[in-house]
Amino acid sequence: MPPRRTLLAIATLLRRGLSSGVGGVGAVVESKLTLDNINPAVLVTQYAVRGELVQRASAIQESNFAEKPYRKLLECNIGNPQAVGQSPLTFNRQVLSLLCYPELARNPAAAALFEPDAILRAKEYLQAIPNGLGAYSESQGFAIVRQQVANFITKRDAGVPAYKENIFLTDGASKGVEKMLSLILRGRTDGVLVPIPQYPLYSATLALAEAHLLGYELVEEEGWRLSVDVLEEKLAAAKANGIHTRGLVVINPGNPTGNSLPLENMKEVLRFCGKHGLILMADEVYQENVWLESRPFHSFKKVLHTMADAPKVQLVSFHSTSKGFLGECGMRGGYFELCNFDPEVVQQLLKLVSIGLCSNTLGQIATGLMVQPPALGEPSYARYSAEKEAILTSMRRRALKLVDGLNAMEGVTCNAPEGAMYAFPSITLPPKAIAAAEAAGKVPDTFYALALLEATGIVVVPGSGFGQKQGTWHFRTTFLPPEKDMEGVITRMGEFHKGFMAKYS
Amino acid sequence: MPPRRTLLAIATLLRRGLSSGVGGVGAVVESKLTLDNINPAVLVTQYAVRGELVQRASAIQESNFAEKPYRKLLECNIGNPQAVGQSPLTFNRQVLSLLCYPELARNPAAAALFEPDAILRAKEYLQAIPNGLGAYSESQGFAIVRQQVANFITKRDAGVPAYKENIFLTDGASKGVEKMLSLILRGRTDGVLVPIPQYPLYSATLALAEAHLLGYELVEEEGWRLSVDVLEEKLAAAKANGIHTRGLVVINPGNPTGNSLPLENMKEVLRFCGKHGLILMADEVYQENVWLESRPFHSFKKVLHTMADAPKVQLVSFHSTSKGFLGECGMRGGYFELCNFDPEVVQQLLKLVSIGLCSNTLGQIATGLMVQPPALGEPSYARYSAEKEAILTSMRRRALKLVDGLNAMEGVTCNAPEGAMYAFPSITLPPKAIAAAEAAGKVPDTFYALALLEATGIVVVPGSGFGQKQGTWHFRTTFLPPEKDMEGVITRMGEFHKGFMAKYS
Repeated sequence: MPPRRTLLAIATLLRRGLSSGVGGVGAVVESKLTLDNINPAVLVTQYAVRGELVQRASAIQESNFAEKPYRKLLECNIGNPQAVGQSPLTFNRQVLSLLCYPELARNPAAAALFEPDAILRAKEYLQAIPNGLGAYSESQGFAIVRQQVANFITKRDAGVPAYKENIFLTDGASKGVEKMLSLILRGRTDGVLVPIPQYPLYSATLALAEAHLLGYELVEEEGWRLSVDVLEEKLAAAKANGIHTRGLVVINPGNPTGNSLPLENMKEVLRFCGKHGLILMADEVYQENVWLESRPFHSFKKVLHTMADAPKVQLVSFHSTSKGFLGECGMRGGYFELCNFDPEVVQQLLKLVSIGLCSNTLGQIATGLMVQPPALGEPSYARYSAEKEAILTSMRRRALKLVDGLNAMEGVTCNAPEGAMYAFPSITLPPKAIAAAEAAGKVPDTFYALALLEATGIVVVPGSGFGQKQGTWHFRTTFLPPEKDMEGVITRMGEFHKGFMAKYS
Repeated sequence: MPPRRTLLAIATLLRRGLSSGVGGVGAVVESKLTLDNINPAVLVTQYAVRGELVQRASAIQESNFAEKPYRKLLECNIGNPQAVGQSPLTFNRQVLSLLCYPELARNPAAAALFEPDAILRAKEYLQAIPNGLGAYSESQGFAIVRQQVANFITKRDAGVPAYKENIFLTDGASKGVEKMLSLILRGRTDGVLVPIPQYPLYSATLALAEAHLLGYELVEEEGWRLSVDVLEEKLAAAKANGIHTRGLVVINPGNPTGNSLPLENMKEVLRFCGKHGLILMADEVYQENVWLESRPFHSFKKVLHTMADAPKVQLVSFHSTSKGFLGECGMRGGYFELCNFDPEVVQQLLKLVSIGLCSNTLGQIATGLMVQPPALGEPSYARYSAEKEAILTSMRRRALKLVDGLNAMEGVTCNAPEGAMYAFPSITLPPKAIAAAEAAGKVPDTFYALALLEATGIVVVPGSGFGQKQGTWHFRTTFLPPEKDMEGVITRMGEFHKGFMAKYS
């Protein structure tokens, strides 16, 4: 019975719109919590990465794969490398292990189990953080880690300086994005420009804030090009509708699209933000996952500082321990860096993060280890480098192999992988399949992805969860399954696709 | 120049109130982020636990204690035991250390450095969590830990059953509170009953949601008694003002008040919630910190289930690894348990938490270790028990000593410590002190707390940060400084107080 629910949600919105805070509504009856009276913004929020497909996958697993031709799921729905076989980096885990149990770092017997530079690094952290990992840190994060992040950024950006005062450590990049949006959004007259397709953290957070997602479509036919003309159009349309555009989200390398922005394009984006006074929210969590040699990663900050006509853009860049080659998703480590922000505004942000006291301290250290790996000449250097290279080169091979496999399927086209962890192929669904989906009450690409799951155990995310150009259908899949399984994944996907197309042609 | 800012904030609120989402406002000029155009809800939000006092303390530290008679700060502003000398529990840290570096758990040489039951426990977790701690967990948290929490609750509550499906693991209790409030609050027509004084997480989160804090004053003269008559009055007043009261927050044992609720009082509260269909948000993070033997901790859930006339109350109980005797604040571990919630609503909550993917995995394990300590007969039992008892008995002694010391000061009265980690003395400030505070543009208790900090290095939180009865002044101090320092703390506080009173009498 959606009508009743919808009416109640509308009623709630109207009450909220008309009330001046208190008074005016008269007697109010309290009631138990149901879908009719929870925050309606929660009801309309979607997060497809852990949505219907994942729920169905869980049900299949709970049924112990009853009547299924497979005995395990393959989770390609989420960039979660260690869930599909990637190992953590030894040096990083040795340091974390020592920090959890500081007596160990001080015990000579540990030398038999840990590399000397891991012990040394643990001792450095313990000296800088005398209260250890069991106390709340500063709200913004440990100063030693923020300094390490600043050093990393300065080096990465060819000397453009970074300062620990502008760096906030967070429980993964998601929490940073949430805080920034919470800081800037003032409700239903505000909006943010977000790419389409986008990572649904943005749509979900905007929906919860009841603000506008101002989607700008990337041009799939041109390798997911970011068109500044489209940005101008969308901004003008928002203005005409009385919407304040507060910021622009750019995900580079792209999620779910897997593209890398050309340098010239980044400059255009920066000029656009400067011209319109927009905050640039640069989601740069895939900065280590770059597959196209001719297009290395450039941070927006570096590009901004190397432009002759450098516009004074307010920029926030997000990074995470979850992606890259670490894949330390469970640690919930990350940071964001602010550039050109008003110090009074930074104080407000600091107050906002202080309400949650601090991000988890092990995630903070995981961030420190990410940005300051063992150096050449240190005992762990060779092993660290070998582990890193093995992960990155294998990921690149898997990316190419998967995209080749996808392009070989009838009616499937996929742009070449340039960065990140995902392929986002376009699938041409036959009219009969679309009709069958409608009959089943499903969005066509969800219908396709559910059929793929039922037939193969492979979990992907329908394109509709990210947004896509009207009339096109996609899915997002990671290329994270282990190399030995990748051939099988492609074969299973291909056989399913063939059967699906035959059934609905 | 507050007027301009205020006008702009009002303008924003009006626009939001009058707009139906899009349209109606005409051309809008974008602008850089300043205090004039950030989310005005952030501007008005306060979080005193890390507010002005802490900022001044940091400045003193950064000045290297220039012209100060002390050489270190004593942070009594925050319940952060490991920041003031408490050590983590050995067993818990051994298990966490092994889990960070699983090779260690499998290495026979580890037997020389770790207790056998710590190794066994680590292996149990690794078996139940084959992806390890580096992968995202389920959004709700690891099933094994949620089952351990359910077992703990069942045992704690004398057999009242708990189920892992109703348990959500969180990054500390704060994040759980934020999610619950985000689920239930629909903006400016909703409110929640919150004790006065309260822990400012509640006021901050309500302010950010632009909802009403409906403060009910605890009766200080009667040991911070919770009066259901006051609750009824506040609820009726809210109704008359058109405010939907969605829930009731009870902090038991109390923060900042340090009281423990009598059993009969808890039943009254439950009946009140049942009668009015209010969600009871039971902040039970201090359940291990109980100092009055005649008033042991009872969970609201157990009390609810043992009432003959049990009202069908929707109840959510919060717990944390940060408090108790663990004091593992930095780990950001915690959980909440839902009782009597509609399964559809639970699904919405699950969607909401899934946007952040999962809470940090080490915090989840820290929660598992909290609820399932070494059992009698296991190798770590004796050491664990000794460490636990030493912390709790010392904390109790420190509580009594501090409160005695406070009560010996002129014009200071403090209720006996019954639970939690805080004393919240009432201070009678002379009129001259109040006038001096006004002249300095400070709230009188902030003026007092700042003077205490300048003179002694002791950091406390002014009562105004928690809310207090009009015309009364307080401060909150933990009793967490090490036992050897407690005498000195009391002496320094007493001498400062004497001087302050003399100066302003």
